[in-house]
Amino acid sequence: MYFEEEQGFIKQSLKVEEKIFETKSKYQNIEVYKSAELGNIMVLDGNAMMSQKDESTYHEMLAHVPVCTHREPSRVLIIGGGDGGTAREVLRHLDLTVDMVEIDEEVVNTAKKYFEENKDIWDNPRFNLTIADGVDFISGCEDKSYDIILVDSTDNKDHANGLFDAMFYVQANRVLKDDGLMAVQSGSWFVAMDEHKEILKKIGNVFGIAMPYRYEMLSYPGINWNFILASKKYHPTADIILQRADLIEGLKYYNSDIQRAAFAVPTYVKKELLGIAKN
Amino acid sequence: MYFEEEQGFIKQSLKVEEKIFETKSKYQNIEVYKSAELGNIMVLDGNAMMSQKDESTYHEMLAHVPVCTHREPSRVLIIGGGDGGTAREVLRHLDLTVDMVEIDEEVVNTAKKYFEENKDIWDNPRFNLTIADGVDFISGCEDKSYDIILVDSTDNKDHANGLFDAMFYVQANRVLKDDGLMAVQSGSWFVAMDEHKEILKKIGNVFGIAMPYRYEMLSYPGINWNFILASKKYHPTADIILQRADLIEGLKYYNSDIQRAAFAVPTYVKKELLGIAKN
Repeated sequence: MYFEEEQGFIKQSLKVEEKIFETKSKYQNIEVYKSAELGNIMVLDGNAMMSQKDESTYHEMLAHVPVCTHREPSRVLIIGGGDGGTAREVLRHLDLTVDMVEIDEEVVNTAKKYFEENKDIWDNPRFNLTIADGVDFISGCEDKSYDIILVDSTDNKDHANGLFDAMFYVQANRVLKDDGLMAVQSGSWFVAMDEHKEILKKIGNVFGIAMPYRYEMLSYPGINWNFILASKKYHPTADIILQRADLIEGLKYYNSDIQRAAFAVPTYVKKELLGIAKN
Repeated sequence: MYFEEEQGFIKQSLKVEEKIFETKSKYQNIEVYKSAELGNIMVLDGNAMMSQKDESTYHEMLAHVPVCTHREPSRVLIIGGGDGGTAREVLRHLDLTVDMVEIDEEVVNTAKKYFEENKDIWDNPRFNLTIADGVDFISGCEDKSYDIILVDSTDNKDHANGLFDAMFYVQANRVLKDDGLMAVQSGSWFVAMDEHKEILKKIGNVFGIAMPYRYEMLSYPGINWNFILASKKYHPTADIILQRADLIEGLKYYNSDIQRAAFAVPTYVKKELLGIAKN
């Protein structure tokens, strides 16, 4: 039995043993598949979000790249991220507190039951979960209240649309301190270039630094996907800032070499992003 | 209609319009598929070797990484590479000559007919093609006759077995000059780790520097694959050596940032390669 997903001209099929859970929440269809090689796989509206084997790559890269680029972060806001993996990675930094705003409580409930690797976060005193629409939440935040915002969303469709709107990035900019950073799930150079460029353009209109970086997820079709780092001040490949990158314990993927490497851009992509990326 | 290929727990299906060529050579089954998005795809014994859309990534990374790591290369030996893409990339460097040894003339004939992007190499006076077994050829070479050897082979099976034998790397070492370099197609961290480690171990037993580097091919299952760079003297991420990397014209993928980035190793891979990779 395979879990199948198409992305343009590529169809990826992951060998799975069975579907162990399915529910329809107010916002989306949630499924969990069990795979001998990948562990449990969470699927939202037909798109694989993560597997237990490779979720650490996604969550480490979304969390540690901005955290290690910042000099003295303190307050982090996660929009989405209901499975808990991004929060788990941020909380490895003992000086950070996390507010997380997830729209769909059923995602949280599913993660609590089927993704045990995040079990310690839910009662962590440095972690505060709100079930709400991220767009509404951020509109209600005071100016300059966060050091870092992480947008851990599904792709740009249905209930996630507002998180890809130009106005959302204006709000994020307002809510960030003067040396604040944001990282955003943002499509793929390799298999979703138009979507990626559109997001990068909107972010570059608001932030002084807007740079894509890459990671790979075996459970995503096309495998190579991108985040965008938006920054008001700090640059993500400046050595002095990365000092803390190799001191984080328990990581599987991220290190300071990987952070620098993730920002390298192939020549054909450089041409596509000319005048859009802001280094 | 799809061209399908499995690699462990992943099955990748590429949308294709039709199979436009098939023949059984003395060594393998050769097919060419036509795809609207990927162009022509060459398939050997069921494994996609390249598509016109992404072959440049593979060939640029196999050729330019060693060429730009060397200070003053002159003579290059390509083992395999019958489609001509690797030779095309080496020949961009006007000071280099290429000897290429391909075992299967039918691969050359197929490339001449269906992969026009390599049409200029076959009559280039700096290019010399021999149809022979690479293992036999290298045994007959004089000591220290090449600056660079590129092993552009299929995976370790059937007629390619000898290219993955420890004795082949000993011969390659003998045939290379004292500052010689070799790059080798070598499986994948992501989807073929055991095979990759085995090759790296054998190469590390012979060369002072043996470092894996990554590239991505949309037409390969798992997409992220690796070459290994073996070196007697030069180090692939030393800045002074890379000066010529950004002066090559006509490239789609490779640049000096990409060369440095390609050698960055995720933490879980570092653990796997501990004591095997030689930096």
